[in-house]
Amino acid sequence: MDNFNFYSPTEFVFGKDRECEAGEYVRKYGGKRVLIHYGGGSAVRSGLLDRVKASLTAEDVFFTELGGVQPNPRDTLVYTGIELCKKENIDFILAVGGGSVIDSAKAIAAGVCYEGDFWDLYCGTPIKKALPVGVVLTIAAAGSEGSGNSVITKVDGLIKKGTGSDLLRARFSILDPVLTQTLPAYQTACGATDIMAHVFERYFTNTKEVEITDRLCEAVLLTMVKEVPRVIADPNNYDARANIMWAGMVAHNNIVGVGREQDWNSHNIEHQLSAVYDCAHGAGLAVIMPSWMEFVYKHDVMRFCQMATRVFGCSMNFENPEATALEGIKRFRSFLHSIGMPINFAELGAKEEDIPLLVEKTGVGSGRTGGFVHLSSDDVAEIYKLAVKAKL
Amino acid sequence: MDNFNFYSPTEFVFGKDRECEAGEYVRKYGGKRVLIHYGGGSAVRSGLLDRVKASLTAEDVFFTELGGVQPNPRDTLVYTGIELCKKENIDFILAVGGGSVIDSAKAIAAGVCYEGDFWDLYCGTPIKKALPVGVVLTIAAAGSEGSGNSVITKVDGLIKKGTGSDLLRARFSILDPVLTQTLPAYQTACGATDIMAHVFERYFTNTKEVEITDRLCEAVLLTMVKEVPRVIADPNNYDARANIMWAGMVAHNNIVGVGREQDWNSHNIEHQLSAVYDCAHGAGLAVIMPSWMEFVYKHDVMRFCQMATRVFGCSMNFENPEATALEGIKRFRSFLHSIGMPINFAELGAKEEDIPLLVEKTGVGSGRTGGFVHLSSDDVAEIYKLAVKAKL
Repeated sequence: MDNFNFYSPTEFVFGKDRECEAGEYVRKYGGKRVLIHYGGGSAVRSGLLDRVKASLTAEDVFFTELGGVQPNPRDTLVYTGIELCKKENIDFILAVGGGSVIDSAKAIAAGVCYEGDFWDLYCGTPIKKALPVGVVLTIAAAGSEGSGNSVITKVDGLIKKGTGSDLLRARFSILDPVLTQTLPAYQTACGATDIMAHVFERYFTNTKEVEITDRLCEAVLLTMVKEVPRVIADPNNYDARANIMWAGMVAHNNIVGVGREQDWNSHNIEHQLSAVYDCAHGAGLAVIMPSWMEFVYKHDVMRFCQMATRVFGCSMNFENPEATALEGIKRFRSFLHSIGMPINFAELGAKEEDIPLLVEKTGVGSGRTGGFVHLSSDDVAEIYKLAVKAKL
Repeated sequence: MDNFNFYSPTEFVFGKDRECEAGEYVRKYGGKRVLIHYGGGSAVRSGLLDRVKASLTAEDVFFTELGGVQPNPRDTLVYTGIELCKKENIDFILAVGGGSVIDSAKAIAAGVCYEGDFWDLYCGTPIKKALPVGVVLTIAAAGSEGSGNSVITKVDGLIKKGTGSDLLRARFSILDPVLTQTLPAYQTACGATDIMAHVFERYFTNTKEVEITDRLCEAVLLTMVKEVPRVIADPNNYDARANIMWAGMVAHNNIVGVGREQDWNSHNIEHQLSAVYDCAHGAGLAVIMPSWMEFVYKHDVMRFCQMATRVFGCSMNFENPEATALEGIKRFRSFLHSIGMPINFAELGAKEEDIPLLVEKTGVGSGRTGGFVHLSSDDVAEIYKLAVKAKL
């Protein structure tokens, strides 16, 4: 096991109706002048935003608001948010939405406290200060409610970049599973795929002897395998929604990733798909991750056998371990298909002829290659090609 | 799943030689005048205390020290510590040791900030303020490095009481597995038993549909089942030590307990054994917990079957589920025996004739009865009797 630090100071406030406590928690963590940041109209139409505002008013907290965050959140709205915060003397950002809204809120929180162009903070300049952020989560997916990470897309050039700092960790995150019950099945499945991908990026490692982290990874994956088909079948299944929502946080605050080298190639390879085609991140991962597995599994057949047997219930084929490894990957792809995810380029709306562009955008060749298997740009192209022809 | 809050703000600093960073972390969390609190001479003899002091000196941090914490830490030393802190104007308590030292440090931290007798804070008076606490952990067991709890024994009457508050959570906890390599096998096994018990107290619940928490519980238990025999066989196995040490934190910061009613009867029943016989808490739990399981398993046979099959690798007997449940309990007791734990009163040094006294001290009858199965004082007596005659 490698040395590590683990720090997850966010207060998680979980359960039915907890969004009505948003005002109390903003107060508890020092907010007096709040920017409410949100996405499309669903938070308005559902009455969620009104409930949150009422709870702020009840605590005598001033607020202003900025909606309009899009999936794959953009730098343009971040600039607007920074200006608004400065004008209104905002001291707390409350994100009401999913990963895109939270990531945009984090960008604003850091950008307000930075003299230069906030984009610098996504290009290597370390974050030294940020306004406190709170979260009311509306979709189980990105794990941004429990992480210190943020990913923003620069509209000029469609460049998608991430940053991370403990200063970006939410002070509190409110997770009410009821809020996820109105999501379309497709979005629910995209979120579930993202959650599983966050675990797999940590599960495939060259670090030996980290049993506790392996087992915690498998705990999340087994939960997803059980619960996701249940919410696809019955969107109002509260308990299944609750298990998925909490699994989404556990999958990405790094408790399932400590003590080991991690990979993250699949995320990099996918980010180019969602940047170019504006597809859902989870849908892109459904196409990429099993293809990545097929490309790398020979690097450590036994680790893929562990996944196949412990997570997907395969019997170990002791005469032919490779067959078990491949069966595990096949079951993962079948699982994704069964919950309504695309599994190849055509189903996603991606184009084979764009592969050279996609490869270039991954930046592989300039050193971004992942921890489990180091990939060259040719390798990445091969993975995209596997994703073109992937089938059940 | 029940509504819950989860808050674990401690920064965990894990790995080889990390205790040499104690000074940096004290500084980071605002300590300028430190009380180093520790137990017997082993921290002195091993050179650990010198390394910690050197790291404080390197950061220009003033320190004084108070050793002598005993297992089942006592109120008498807490009073001494409170006096010393006031006299020396201490602003940070650094616990160097195991659960007893940390619990004593927490008691001092809260007691310094309380006008009256600190024992009030263990009898229902809420903790409103406490000095910050840091930890250098030397044994994987109590989980106090990641919890907000503290248990102290009042010497007058041998009364053992616990308290809890987020204010008692350590600011940082340094976990170096190397420090646990010199522990005698018996203490290692006692710690491992305590870790498993912390999980089982949360695992046995009447709350349905909390799959993610169940799976996380099982992740810790499966890790213990694999790793503990390896450290008993080879005390210097770093990776096995590391897995156990991290599992001990995960077992008790409540990530494996959220969203559900918990039990905690076994802890209450055991606390009386360690209070009366001054035995190790883990050894007492090895005697009590399987006996408690035998007494309650009929309340939810399927839950015990889940434990038996998922944790102890039993095959499910579909014609006779009770047989599977009992086989799981039997394997748990055999496992404890195999790592050198006592499994009955005689092996622990407890006496059957003391049972009425022990029952009285549990306080059952005045409302402390546990969440999974409500126990009367007669029930508790029956569990002690099962523990008298327990065998493999």
